[in-house]
Amino acid sequence: MSVPTASSFVPGLEGVVAAQTRLSSVDGLAGELIIAGFPLERLASNATFEETVYLLWHDALPNVAQLDDFRQELAVDRSLIPATLDLLKAAAAQKVDAMDALRMAASTLSLRVPGEQAANLSHEEANKRDARILVAQFPTIVAAYWRLTEGNDPIEPRGDLSHAANYLYMLFGAIPSAERTRGMETYLNTVVDHGLNASTFAARVIIATQSDMISAIVGAVGALKGPLHGGAPGPALDMVFEIGDASRAETVLREKIERGERLMGFGHRVYKVRDPRADVLAAASERLYRADGDMALYNLSREVEKTALALLEEYKPGRNLKTNVEFYTALLLHGLGLPTPLFTSTFAISRVAGWTAHCFEQQQAGRLIRPQSEYIGVKDRHWLSVDQR
Amino acid sequence: MSVPTASSFVPGLEGVVAAQTRLSSVDGLAGELIIAGFPLERLASNATFEETVYLLWHDALPNVAQLDDFRQELAVDRSLIPATLDLLKAAAAQKVDAMDALRMAASTLSLRVPGEQAANLSHEEANKRDARILVAQFPTIVAAYWRLTEGNDPIEPRGDLSHAANYLYMLFGAIPSAERTRGMETYLNTVVDHGLNASTFAARVIIATQSDMISAIVGAVGALKGPLHGGAPGPALDMVFEIGDASRAETVLREKIERGERLMGFGHRVYKVRDPRADVLAAASERLYRADGDMALYNLSREVEKTALALLEEYKPGRNLKTNVEFYTALLLHGLGLPTPLFTSTFAISRVAGWTAHCFEQQQAGRLIRPQSEYIGVKDRHWLSVDQR
Repeated sequence: MSVPTASSFVPGLEGVVAAQTRLSSVDGLAGELIIAGFPLERLASNATFEETVYLLWHDALPNVAQLDDFRQELAVDRSLIPATLDLLKAAAAQKVDAMDALRMAASTLSLRVPGEQAANLSHEEANKRDARILVAQFPTIVAAYWRLTEGNDPIEPRGDLSHAANYLYMLFGAIPSAERTRGMETYLNTVVDHGLNASTFAARVIIATQSDMISAIVGAVGALKGPLHGGAPGPALDMVFEIGDASRAETVLREKIERGERLMGFGHRVYKVRDPRADVLAAASERLYRADGDMALYNLSREVEKTALALLEEYKPGRNLKTNVEFYTALLLHGLGLPTPLFTSTFAISRVAGWTAHCFEQQQAGRLIRPQSEYIGVKDRHWLSVDQR
Repeated sequence: MSVPTASSFVPGLEGVVAAQTRLSSVDGLAGELIIAGFPLERLASNATFEETVYLLWHDALPNVAQLDDFRQELAVDRSLIPATLDLLKAAAAQKVDAMDALRMAASTLSLRVPGEQAANLSHEEANKRDARILVAQFPTIVAAYWRLTEGNDPIEPRGDLSHAANYLYMLFGAIPSAERTRGMETYLNTVVDHGLNASTFAARVIIATQSDMISAIVGAVGALKGPLHGGAPGPALDMVFEIGDASRAETVLREKIERGERLMGFGHRVYKVRDPRADVLAAASERLYRADGDMALYNLSREVEKTALALLEEYKPGRNLKTNVEFYTALLLHGLGLPTPLFTSTFAISRVAGWTAHCFEQQQAGRLIRPQSEYIGVKDRHWLSVDQR
């Protein structure tokens, strides 16, 4: 119980180190991302999403038996309970934002299982159980909500499909090809964790009060919704559609830049060189579109990217604005058939693994996160009764 | 887009200033709390809760017309919609923690009104509307949930009662006396804001992504649930009940201290002198118990407090462990007839006003809160296929 010392306001907490982690390392100057010890490129191209989640939770890859057990545990937890489904139906009738629907539905997961006392679990054991439920449920929730908003019945998950394949299956009702499953899996692996971003930090602040896993993740979903964080992967592709033909790219982009508009899909707060996630997703997009996609759109996107990078260098020399993760997220998810309003909640389907892993770490740290505020208001106001005001 | 510079890990962000605020000032060394310009003692004893909320949102007290408008706006937003009520029924059947029920129900408030685009509101206007809905709804949600868990029907709010009186009315079904209403009002005023505590900080982190008000407050509810933050006001009173008679106070407390137990209701992370909130709530408790309460319990509590303070000074000299806000929260809320499991959600009924006000401030600041993490894991792990592990 030491007394906080006076210090000065750090806007946005920029540069302040608020956590130590074994989960990911973001080197913006080198353009390197490490996920639990693996360079992103090595992990994303090799792992199933189940392996990635296990790796984040256990700091080691599962062996055959461990992986098999984990798959079966997830399969058991995938179906929705009536309370969750009823709420998704009410949300679909109102056509709320898919992230609001995910937040509401995620909050109901406390109803799936008995509380820690009733289940005779320690707080840590209950949080592990709930992390598994959250990861298992997110694809089912997102897919069911989308189908309900489209007037379709939700589709039950299948026990014989992987996590990534199940998500595509529950969205579209067909067992996805190996290429499409691999495309989704690569996306989920690529955005699973990224240092102390705002949603991960929100989850850590909440769990650090010794609150529960579901409360922490529900808070993180709320943070990810914000357009300054996860809420804007759609517009990058909108720009490509607006351009429509490679011959128009330079004219349209030049006009945008000269009007002072930001080019969506370029530039990142941290990465000063190319975002390593963009490379991984670019390669995954190329594979997907070549196997099973609209190559004209793929080629157009590459042309738009090339033109945008050249113009950004021309208008903003030295700023090093590179293609970011949003650009290829949009291309890849569109290629997988996902509508734009689901991009952010699909991001959440991946990132919930990172959030829960950070919560386990924060629990271990066992300490409240409680910064200070600086009071800049008046003092000693006098009370006037309401008729004197 | 400046590149973060290397710095060192600050556990718990202790001493780091993460926000500037006009809402409250906590001076732990002087034992002073200022709420929007007013010393707590002056505000808590004079204001209705509606005036306090208006003050936090507008940095000024309302005049007669403004206060009347605000009361009417709250009255319109108090009743539950079917989706919220249905979910509370499902939660009551499972007997989940009252804070989990509040988190779930608060999350459904996005279903009450059209989203900002459908309602043709700016993001700021929608957030103001939703702040009002959140403040109006919290007492109704908490009261309805408690009645449902007890097997009783929820009670509709009354348009002619104040916020504090309505809460007591919806809990117990009788219009509360002026003393009881004043007791609740004083409690709500006293804990309405307290610098950058963990739940307020969680709300700020979420809204800073430009997410919405409901998402931010749902995250804050999750943080307040944690026993390191708002989740432990019950045990202080349990200790008083365990002692049962003033003659046993010294023996029981001495045993507890010598067994190394913490005395619940004493000591605070920030206050090194008496918590000013404890004084205000002690005076409110005395008024309430004298007017309409069990004076034997009140006198016993004062005796236990006196004995505990003397023993803490004897066993831990110089530590300055004083009575904290939890001790008198427990006594006052118990005197108002509230069961212990509702103490934290009653705290939330007050604090939601502070949370929303902090969100308005953070929105004005317009900047993402995004600290750094320090990677302490391995690098360059090699991939082994699953049968090689």
